[in-house]
Amino acid sequence: MRLSELSEQSGVPTATIKYYLREGLLPPGERVTATTSSYDEAHLRRLRLVRALIQVGRLPVATVREVLAHADNEELGRTMRLGAALWELPSAPEPELPAADYARAEEVVAQLLARLGWSSAQELAALSPSHRSLVVALATLTGLGYPFPDERLVPYAELMHQAASMDLDFMETLPGEAAKVEGALVGTVLFEPVLTALRRLAQEEESVRRYGV
Amino acid sequence: MRLSELSEQSGVPTATIKYYLREGLLPPGERVTATTSSYDEAHLRRLRLVRALIQVGRLPVATVREVLAHADNEELGRTMRLGAALWELPSAPEPELPAADYARAEEVVAQLLARLGWSSAQELAALSPSHRSLVVALATLTGLGYPFPDERLVPYAELMHQAASMDLDFMETLPGEAAKVEGALVGTVLFEPVLTALRRLAQEEESVRRYGV
Repeated sequence: MRLSELSEQSGVPTATIKYYLREGLLPPGERVTATTSSYDEAHLRRLRLVRALIQVGRLPVATVREVLAHADNEELGRTMRLGAALWELPSAPEPELPAADYARAEEVVAQLLARLGWSSAQELAALSPSHRSLVVALATLTGLGYPFPDERLVPYAELMHQAASMDLDFMETLPGEAAKVEGALVGTVLFEPVLTALRRLAQEEESVRRYGV
Repeated sequence: MRLSELSEQSGVPTATIKYYLREGLLPPGERVTATTSSYDEAHLRRLRLVRALIQVGRLPVATVREVLAHADNEELGRTMRLGAALWELPSAPEPELPAADYARAEEVVAQLLARLGWSSAQELAALSPSHRSLVVALATLTGLGYPFPDERLVPYAELMHQAASMDLDFMETLPGEAAKVEGALVGTVLFEPVLTALRRLAQEEESVRRYGV
């Protein structure tokens, strides 16, 4: 398809597409004449992803470039392609808390992973921003006077493991490695607000069932 | 306990506690002499909640006052006390999307609730900010070219229903109605980053198990 069709199908203005091409967020099309190029489904998919990461993930252009470079690195195995891409995502600022709150939270997470038998997560602990986010979230709650012992976290972690399995099951239905990695990125970043809203809605439903309006 | 002890036990500076007292976020203590008052466990609990809502929930003081006024309204049933408090929480800004994307997302949510048999959530749909958040999140995904049909959402909603039931089970163990409502507020707002981190960690664990590093 031509640039104008790519714009029409994606809803992204042609000027923005040209900007993404210049910045290397979108691979060049196939040159047809001196002034026109042709684009395919892979361009359309990549364009949607770039727009999603910028608009919903609120990533700066330079970060999107890093994320995509990892996602496109065919020398890496799937976990590392995905992991490296996700690990480029910005994490929430870490609040200033007493060192003891952080130490306690690290201990709780270590015990939680041991209870769950998540040995890969244990091995990756020092590297993984997700591990760090969990420590920060729990340290914050502890600092506020709401400590969560690891045994209370186990059933929530097991639910999230079921969700993660469904995420990967869906990813595997996508055709081709590039689509799989992109689908996983979208699923992780953009599906989070959906899950948060579903939980609040489920709380309302369950509250009415138990206590009436 | 005295103001200085309240400060020590909560980690909140006395000047901040006095500010919360002036702003009505914290009920006055029991007057002991002309210049000193005495505070109890309920003050400590309330102080922790106020600080959590301001620091982690990033709520403005005026919003915290509204949230607490609903939570403290003993004329309401538990669902409405909780619901009204949660409904004061600020929601994410709504992106400008074609009306068709919003209409499609509303239809998907209606079908999802029907499939789930969440009749209370259906009845409260027009009122509930959680319902609106879900519509906005799905409309955003649709607008970006990633539509989620209701049948793909059902298993995630069921997992979130299990999480919500555990949330309420825990709330019921808290002593007294005020602690219950406060515990539910904390659980909803502050536990969201914990669940998000658990999901990403579970994805890493599951990815290594399936595909290696």
